[in-house]
Amino acid sequence: VTVWLVGAGPGDPGLITVRALELIRRCDVLVYDRLVAPELVDEAPADALRIGREPLRQERINELLVEYGLRGLDVVRLKGGDPFVFGRGGEEALALADAGVPFEVVPGVSSVSAVPAAAGIPVTHRGLASLATFASGHDPDAIEYELLARTGGTVVFFMALGSLPTIAERLIAHGRDPDTPAAVISAGTTPEQQTVTAPLAGLAAAAAGLASPALVVVGDVVGVAAQLAPRAVAVAAAD
Amino acid sequence: VTVWLVGAGPGDPGLITVRALELIRRCDVLVYDRLVAPELVDEAPADALRIGREPLRQERINELLVEYGLRGLDVVRLKGGDPFVFGRGGEEALALADAGVPFEVVPGVSSVSAVPAAAGIPVTHRGLASLATFASGHDPDAIEYELLARTGGTVVFFMALGSLPTIAERLIAHGRDPDTPAAVISAGTTPEQQTVTAPLAGLAAAAAGLASPALVVVGDVVGVAAQLAPRAVAVAAAD
Repeated sequence: VTVWLVGAGPGDPGLITVRALELIRRCDVLVYDRLVAPELVDEAPADALRIGREPLRQERINELLVEYGLRGLDVVRLKGGDPFVFGRGGEEALALADAGVPFEVVPGVSSVSAVPAAAGIPVTHRGLASLATFASGHDPDAIEYELLARTGGTVVFFMALGSLPTIAERLIAHGRDPDTPAAVISAGTTPEQQTVTAPLAGLAAAAAGLASPALVVVGDVVGVAAQLAPRAVAVAAAD
Repeated sequence: VTVWLVGAGPGDPGLITVRALELIRRCDVLVYDRLVAPELVDEAPADALRIGREPLRQERINELLVEYGLRGLDVVRLKGGDPFVFGRGGEEALALADAGVPFEVVPGVSSVSAVPAAAGIPVTHRGLASLATFASGHDPDAIEYELLARTGGTVVFFMALGSLPTIAERLIAHGRDPDTPAAVISAGTTPEQQTVTAPLAGLAAAAAGLASPALVVVGDVVGVAAQLAPRAVAVAAAD
């Protein structure tokens, strides 16, 4: 293997996997996303080449992974959350496979479940939700509103802060109860974590002051957080 | 904090988080699920009390966590995958909150996304699926078939091997294309991992020989695995 597609976890650097950290500590090249904790980037060897993903287009990232991979270098492509859950890891994997570069996927803790957890919200819960749907909010016109309005399960939107007014309005227009408990969690699992909860109809207004990255959770499971609040300790707070 | 609800990851012991491993290494009491890797149980201090969850009912587990927590012991409740994704972690958290025991949730790598990844299947993929739904297959009568038959996204069933013939039949009866690519992955991310892929209509027959634990994936993303196969290296194979 020369290229590893590695999940860095949801934000808290302690939530990276043991295997991922081992790979970072011995890589030749580290290509990392903007949202990856700086503490993790610092774990790469002093002489490793560090490449921030941010200014580059996806096609250029693919090319770089192939280029360094073909040279036999140990390349870690470190992505926020999990590479295969809204991470475009599949595209990078296909580019590597097409070019004949051996690669491995190292799953990470995905933000879609860990961020709600850090706010005291279980995405599934006996009696409240036996099903959870995860959707990208990036393009509000591409969302299956009818489906998401009708499910009895939890719905989690990724990258949905900008389009939250549209998303909430359309869910309600398609039949979702405006009183459905809902939450927005900003910077989940980090010391900057902020959570706002409100009925779906009022969520966009309540969350107006929050910053990206943020996750939106819609469903009865949001109510569990209030029951847990007196004793729960935030994940990122450590001890 | 005295009780930690900790995700152990999907099977491969290298996929536990750094923070989880730290907590195991200094706990007084370790309460662990059957599917947790023995290597992780062995990381607890030699004098730690180890309690296998298997013979106990959920209510008894809750009582034990409260009991040891109230005594101020450092208790790690180590669960397969993620505690808040089909893990009944919410129930344990509520029991602790009700009893006034401080606790913390440490998210883990969930099997629902990591096991497909280990088989080369991204649960979301540009152009194929921008949405993924995770459902328990434990009770086939409790599943929202109409919804899952109609989504254009990926559907992942957890604990669905026993009821796979029923689930596949009902999805098709509710309108899902019988030719939808589908897969069953047994013992994902471990050296025993086995994957069977087949069109939805033939999946139950094709997977008849597989053992639990197994995950079922339905959707066009299953086709990505075949494109990746020549070069992909299984997650658990390490190097």
